[in-house]
Amino acid sequence: MIKAGIIGATGYAGGEMVRLLMAHKEVEIAWFGSRSYIDKKYSEVYQNMFQIVDAKCMDDNMEALADEVDVIFTATPQGLCASLVKEEILSRVKIIDLSADFRIKDVNVYEEWYGIKHPTAQFIDEAVYGLCEVNREQIKKARLIANPGCYPTCSNLSIRPLLLEGMIDPSTIIIDAKSGTSGAGRGAKVNNLYCEVNENIKAYGVATHRHTPEIEEQLSYAAGKPVVLNFTPHLVPMNRGILVTAYASLVRDVTYEDVKAAYDKYYADEKFVRVLGRDVCPETKWVEGSNYVDVNFKLDPRTNRVIMMGAMDNLVKGAAGQAVQNMNLMFGYKESEGLELVPMFP
Amino acid sequence: MIKAGIIGATGYAGGEMVRLLMAHKEVEIAWFGSRSYIDKKYSEVYQNMFQIVDAKCMDDNMEALADEVDVIFTATPQGLCASLVKEEILSRVKIIDLSADFRIKDVNVYEEWYGIKHPTAQFIDEAVYGLCEVNREQIKKARLIANPGCYPTCSNLSIRPLLLEGMIDPSTIIIDAKSGTSGAGRGAKVNNLYCEVNENIKAYGVATHRHTPEIEEQLSYAAGKPVVLNFTPHLVPMNRGILVTAYASLVRDVTYEDVKAAYDKYYADEKFVRVLGRDVCPETKWVEGSNYVDVNFKLDPRTNRVIMMGAMDNLVKGAAGQAVQNMNLMFGYKESEGLELVPMFP
Amino acid sequence: MIKAGIIGATGYAGGEMVRLLMAHKEVEIAWFGSRSYIDKKYSEVYQNMFQIVDAKCMDDNMEALADEVDVIFTATPQGLCASLVKEEILSRVKIIDLSADFRIKDVNVYEEWYGIKHPTAQFIDEAVYGLCEVNREQIKKARLIANPGCYPTCSNLSIRPLLLEGMIDPSTIIIDAKSGTSGAGRGAKVNNLYCEVNENIKAYGVATHRHTPEIEEQLSYAAGKPVVLNFTPHLVPMNRGILVTAYASLVRDVTYEDVKAAYDKYYADEKFVRVLGRDVCPETKWVEGSNYVDVNFKLDPRTNRVIMMGAMDNLVKGAAGQAVQNMNLMFGYKESEGLELVPMFP
Amino acid sequence: MIKAGIIGATGYAGGEMVRLLMAHKEVEIAWFGSRSYIDKKYSEVYQNMFQIVDAKCMDDNMEALADEVDVIFTATPQGLCASLVKEEILSRVKIIDLSADFRIKDVNVYEEWYGIKHPTAQFIDEAVYGLCEVNREQIKKARLIANPGCYPTCSNLSIRPLLLEGMIDPSTIIIDAKSGTSGAGRGAKVNNLYCEVNENIKAYGVATHRHTPEIEEQLSYAAGKPVVLNFTPHLVPMNRGILVTAYASLVRDVTYEDVKAAYDKYYADEKFVRVLGRDVCPETKWVEGSNYVDVNFKLDPRTNRVIMMGAMDNLVKGAAGQAVQNMNLMFGYKESEGLELVPMFP
Repeated sequence: MIKAGIIGATGYAGGEMVRLLMAHKEVEIAWFGSRSYIDKKYSEVYQNMFQIVDAKCMDDNMEALADEVDVIFTATPQGLCASLVKEEILSRVKIIDLSADFRIKDVNVYEEWYGIKHPTAQFIDEAVYGLCEVNREQIKKARLIANPGCYPTCSNLSIRPLLLEGMIDPSTIIIDAKSGTSGAGRGAKVNNLYCEVNENIKAYGVATHRHTPEIEEQLSYAAGKPVVLNFTPHLVPMNRGILVTAYASLVRDVTYEDVKAAYDKYYADEKFVRVLGRDVCPETKWVEGSNYVDVNFKLDPRTNRVIMMGAMDNLVKGAAGQAVQNMNLMFGYKESEGLELVPMFP
Repeated sequence: MIKAGIIGATGYAGGEMVRLLMAHKEVEIAWFGSRSYIDKKYSEVYQNMFQIVDAKCMDDNMEALADEVDVIFTATPQGLCASLVKEEILSRVKIIDLSADFRIKDVNVYEEWYGIKHPTAQFIDEAVYGLCEVNREQIKKARLIANPGCYPTCSNLSIRPLLLEGMIDPSTIIIDAKSGTSGAGRGAKVNNLYCEVNENIKAYGVATHRHTPEIEEQLSYAAGKPVVLNFTPHLVPMNRGILVTAYASLVRDVTYEDVKAAYDKYYADEKFVRVLGRDVCPETKWVEGSNYVDVNFKLDPRTNRVIMMGAMDNLVKGAAGQAVQNMNLMFGYKESEGLELVPMFP
Repeated sequence: MIKAGIIGATGYAGGEMVRLLMAHKEVEIAWFGSRSYIDKKYSEVYQNMFQIVDAKCMDDNMEALADEVDVIFTATPQGLCASLVKEEILSRVKIIDLSADFRIKDVNVYEEWYGIKHPTAQFIDEAVYGLCEVNREQIKKARLIANPGCYPTCSNLSIRPLLLEGMIDPSTIIIDAKSGTSGAGRGAKVNNLYCEVNENIKAYGVATHRHTPEIEEQLSYAAGKPVVLNFTPHLVPMNRGILVTAYASLVRDVTYEDVKAAYDKYYADEKFVRVLGRDVCPETKWVEGSNYVDVNFKLDPRTNRVIMMGAMDNLVKGAAGQAVQNMNLMFGYKESEGLELVPMFP
Repeated sequence: MIKAGIIGATGYAGGEMVRLLMAHKEVEIAWFGSRSYIDKKYSEVYQNMFQIVDAKCMDDNMEALADEVDVIFTATPQGLCASLVKEEILSRVKIIDLSADFRIKDVNVYEEWYGIKHPTAQFIDEAVYGLCEVNREQIKKARLIANPGCYPTCSNLSIRPLLLEGMIDPSTIIIDAKSGTSGAGRGAKVNNLYCEVNENIKAYGVATHRHTPEIEEQLSYAAGKPVVLNFTPHLVPMNRGILVTAYASLVRDVTYEDVKAAYDKYYADEKFVRVLGRDVCPETKWVEGSNYVDVNFKLDPRTNRVIMMGAMDNLVKGAAGQAVQNMNLMFGYKESEGLELVPMFP
């Protein structure tokens, strides 16, 4: 049994951390950090936790936390985790950062896309990019995990096998992604009001979204060379879910079976990545509330392109679920502990 | 470890039975009955179950089932369970019927409101009305459970304490209820199409809804005399959730504390009924995916009425969750086994 | 051709005023008032108005406005219109106030329920309550209109005929109302975020909602004696629409035909009130975008009550549409000018 | 004043034809054709039309219709219009076909993608593709209009200027489109039930959707050479709206101003195509209920691609509105008559 602290426990990703950890046999949450709600009962912020969580919200004090817990989850805005982390803390406690602070290896790229100065760039090298299906062994030994972004997780898992197998031309990759509104966070903004989002769909951050360099870096490792691509996110009137529809040109003649074999090669033994049956398109509803990513593809011989698709719950595999998966690996628990969640339908 | 069979496994309530039982440590589903999809893989009907359920759909053969399983859940249209049950079957297997066939003790009332002849009325007496918080001890010994309706569960739990404590006049009860669309089932009807339900709210079955006599009968037991009331259900554009707003006149002067004490008297030890804090109105979203019913009330001294409110997930506590709770009681498992589900938000 | 000014043009009701007046043959909007967006192009606040409205937002200067326009619409928070109105202004321009400032004749009741001091109570007597179907003749001569609230409009029109005909007992009236989220306004509040409202329903303002005394006052006129009632609003996950489900005890034996005749007596010649056919329940979707109120009723002989129902678009007949209807009456235009809007489905 | 007949008046597109024509000064609807509802009052099928439309539904008798009306709209499944049209009919009445029967000039392509034999291919040549902004002059003289598909209208108008100006490489075009659920029609199918669509997004018809050849043919005219492209539609949980996000590689260095000028060249004088301001992304909500198409673009110098975006109401400009626009041109009315609809927000 270990103790966990959450900094940023009252955002949507923080709330999902609480939901998942409450059902985890090996973890007790010892610290519900939330600067905005210090001393307020957590269950008054999230009424679903009434009679489940009795604790009050605490300040974001990482020093104090490091004495009390075994692992800290930071579900906070960009820059916060980076501003708090120190060698002294890392030597005492493991950190899983759900923000982007340690995801991008090139600090200049981080600073350019995020528009902030990185205060603790010395830890970037050490940080392990926590996409469990890719970096499992390093995660087990890590002190600091950069938990992947929601769009990057879904994009990467959908596209990666075909890059590794050299089937597609990296320079032709286009990712058109769609996300539920919980990805926009719980901040009170007019743009996220019910009446603005409902009965509406739009692209946003076109050609400028911050997840672009993260996706590119990770796919570059798979391609073995730099990848530059288009990534366009869209806001969808639903609470949860990310759907990725990605396009790339094939570099050689492949059959359905060839491509299916490529996906199976990497995912046949992966519990949380499901390669769907022929012609079944991933739907976000089929993975809601669970840690699964459903992937599939369609060949288009007319254009010589492949359409790669992935669906995932942005708050689970795209945030809190993946963080728990990382924690399980780091502490030697069964990788799926607390994550054997059957998707909820409808 | 026991074996369970589900007849009607491909409706929404049946699907929820599967979701809950897959996470139950003591049960294995041995039969996925679905007349409409015989021999089709269950996970092709409910793609969320891909790589989770490997079985195919079977016919609704209760005789065969009785040899294979310890408990049968019937999540089927009215009349089906009643047409299949026999002494010979009941002597071999326990049955939890999610339909209305055995809920109403007066067969004439059943036949009048449901418009069908009851083929096996001889079992009505034996059947136990499976509202666990009310009939716990009888449930433990039952062979045949009439699993309560969704609206009746939420209405009953919201109103009952004030009847038991003699605080309200039974002849003044009005129940205005609102339900998500999964309550309408998975049948392909124009009325339930996305574009007909979305951005819309309406009452239906006004003064004629079949759950009326069930609510009246159960509340009559609490009142100690016959209750006749108004029940008006509404269709709400959301997948899950029932909200009950009930009105009644107070028969004596009571304070907030008096009424709160009445609720606490019956629910303080009930895990799945949460009496909310003062002035907090129940919201369906706060119980989604879980077996909780959240209840609360507001006194209106101007009109001398009390407004009683309850919120619940219609597919969990309103159907499959309650069925599992009944099963746990019947087989001596911990009552909350498989039901310690943290509500999902958002 | 007259000129109109709108104070509060960038709220949802103000936006609807613009939509309706842009299609009105006899009116030109000369002033788009919005304190929050002064000097910003209106079409940058409401992108639907791109290439339709070219004007910029102006301050809320009623003095200046009175020189430029023939009628002022105030779609502003409580207290604002009351703080600006003066005899000098009223002598030059007609005012249609969409707030509650002049709706309630008893200033003490206003001040108690709204919690603010009324600065210009001397105009309350003069103000005409702008429910066109009820006060048509006085509206024609009015200088100052108190445009009715959304819930009161729908409640009043649904219940009024049966009070006027003495069919129901006023002391038994219970109004259970459901509203789309645009009624909550465009303010950036966590409670109104997409993820908080979507897939959710709740009651709010139980026994304390400010529309209660307005409904009671208006129904008292119809009953010929003071009416005290219960009014419970609910927030529904949809953009537009109000549904009222009201209950009352019958005071004498009536048939369907009797009650139908009562509704027809008052509404047969009313273009915007549609009395639906037998057993058809009003649905908000069927009136969306239009000025119609659909009403109907159901007798319940079991409880001797009648269930009265009404559906309406809260932004049209519940706000901007009714304001235009009032304006038409005040300026001698055809009452339905600019309001012959066919409801949009789906 | 002319008379119009609608065949297929009870589908969603047919219903929208009725909504628009009821508000059109120059047209009277003389025939509400609906095989499924013969002799039923139209307003019982679409309750929004209560007290607005008094007529009953009629059979789909084109011969009889041709004697009674000046223009026939066919809002029917593929193949129906083609099976009914004859020289004798066309000589008496104008036909605007909302189905795909006469959109594709190469009958083999039609038959291959639609999987049906074309019974009256002799009229394909004569039929004018009714995209008003492109074929205005031919439309004025046409007897038979092939009203464009929803996806093709939005795709074409979004991409066309850059092809005409030779700015993009036609072989690199990828169209990722998102549609509200009304596009799926009013048929009672499990896939279109509220609970299946709500809180969900998925691609469908990947690499095989029937609108692909229509888009390709129209863009080929603009490119001056055959265009083969990827088109992927997605189903979005909303009633109305299509959003197109299209990608193509630039063939030469262009600035924002260059591309803006290209759009303005074709659309500056087009009432119904709005080229948005810099960096404003089209949103379906901003055009809901109206005949507008909002278009815009973003250059991505990193990938040397342009992202082209378009938003439209699929039932208006994507179906019924465009049909009315065609009718206006054919009968010499003002092109925008009956279509000066301000988009409804929220």
